[in-house]
Amino acid sequence: MISYCVFDAYGTLFDVHSAASKFQRILGNKQESVSALWRQKQLEYTWLRSLMGRYVSFDQVTADALQYSLQVHGFQEDSSKVNLLEAYKKLDCYEDVQSCLNQLRANNVATAILSNGTLPSLKTLVENANVAHLFDQLISVSEVEVYKPHPSAYDLVTRKAQIPKEKVAFISSNCWDAIGAANFGFQVFWLNRNENVPDVLPGKFTTIYNLNQLLDKVVQPS
Amino acid sequence: MISYCVFDAYGTLFDVHSAASKFQRILGNKQESVSALWRQKQLEYTWLRSLMGRYVSFDQVTADALQYSLQVHGFQEDSSKVNLLEAYKKLDCYEDVQSCLNQLRANNVATAILSNGTLPSLKTLVENANVAHLFDQLISVSEVEVYKPHPSAYDLVTRKAQIPKEKVAFISSNCWDAIGAANFGFQVFWLNRNENVPDVLPGKFTTIYNLNQLLDKVVQPS
Repeated sequence: MISYCVFDAYGTLFDVHSAASKFQRILGNKQESVSALWRQKQLEYTWLRSLMGRYVSFDQVTADALQYSLQVHGFQEDSSKVNLLEAYKKLDCYEDVQSCLNQLRANNVATAILSNGTLPSLKTLVENANVAHLFDQLISVSEVEVYKPHPSAYDLVTRKAQIPKEKVAFISSNCWDAIGAANFGFQVFWLNRNENVPDVLPGKFTTIYNLNQLLDKVVQPS
Repeated sequence: MISYCVFDAYGTLFDVHSAASKFQRILGNKQESVSALWRQKQLEYTWLRSLMGRYVSFDQVTADALQYSLQVHGFQEDSSKVNLLEAYKKLDCYEDVQSCLNQLRANNVATAILSNGTLPSLKTLVENANVAHLFDQLISVSEVEVYKPHPSAYDLVTRKAQIPKEKVAFISSNCWDAIGAANFGFQVFWLNRNENVPDVLPGKFTTIYNLNQLLDKVVQPS
């Protein structure tokens, strides 16, 4: 029985590419490519910094990765960077989030976010999208200063909620994150919004294609 | 004074894209894209597995990453995969390797490889390229079962060579690897063969554009 649903934030509840999509005027036809490399480097830098023991906040990593991507694409970074980072604080929330969360809570399932993001950034994200009231807890890996998929990141959930890991469902659109959570011991749902190929890494998860499909798996019919 | 030059193998001494380049017949115009994603996922999987504590050999990681890349590009994996993995054991050696190594050794600088690769694969690589005699040591991270840029990987050099890290020059074409080695404490040269943008990560290194430029920096004029 699942009593706690824990969601990844970036890519899972919030569309990370919605920031760059608002700056077509500046980025032109490089918009998608800038955004994809920004995201790729952002993740790479979290992994590399965790392995080197050189943690900085996700806000800083995000800014560093954007600087790299803008430079690769030949953009002057100064003003574009400030605007894009500002937009990253107010990412679009996916359409299926509100109804899924509402129904989970109506069925007495507690809800939380576990994210690489800092607590202030997570608060801004959920408040801007009017979904702050739908989460019992916002949990940031900043407390342990190591990024997912390190087990210490996932362990924050069990420590803070005082709940056995077997009762936790973890939902992420990032396949590597789903696999990290599976290795830790959660019941895991990979939210494969774009029908991507799964990563070839060890870890058991159930694939869903939108958040409505989560309800059938987690909530028992009454 | 540098007394020991330690080289990364894949991408630095050996061209990782030379495997796929031999299979244009099978991969067609997707050859470069298959090879790029293969390499990207190979590195990602080393970092993710190291963070999750789920080490497998670099041979296995390489096979897993290739499987992912072939699937994304819509190829049946079976026969292509076997052929490409076979070619990965015999990568082309860059043209500047032989003369650089010869000159370092003529100037009493010891030489080694520190690689994510397994010892049998490293031996096959250097023997196939006729450069085995140019290295005093081949060192594989398989001994510590964690991948670069974890400090334990670089520490293998100091442990095996019994040499203070300040006397070691580390050379890598992979910017993140150069930065990892710099964080560990080596004198580091980033071999920027393709005039890439440097990663936005902390760590001091000197940029060179080919291996001939290394000699001026390491060998004192007599």
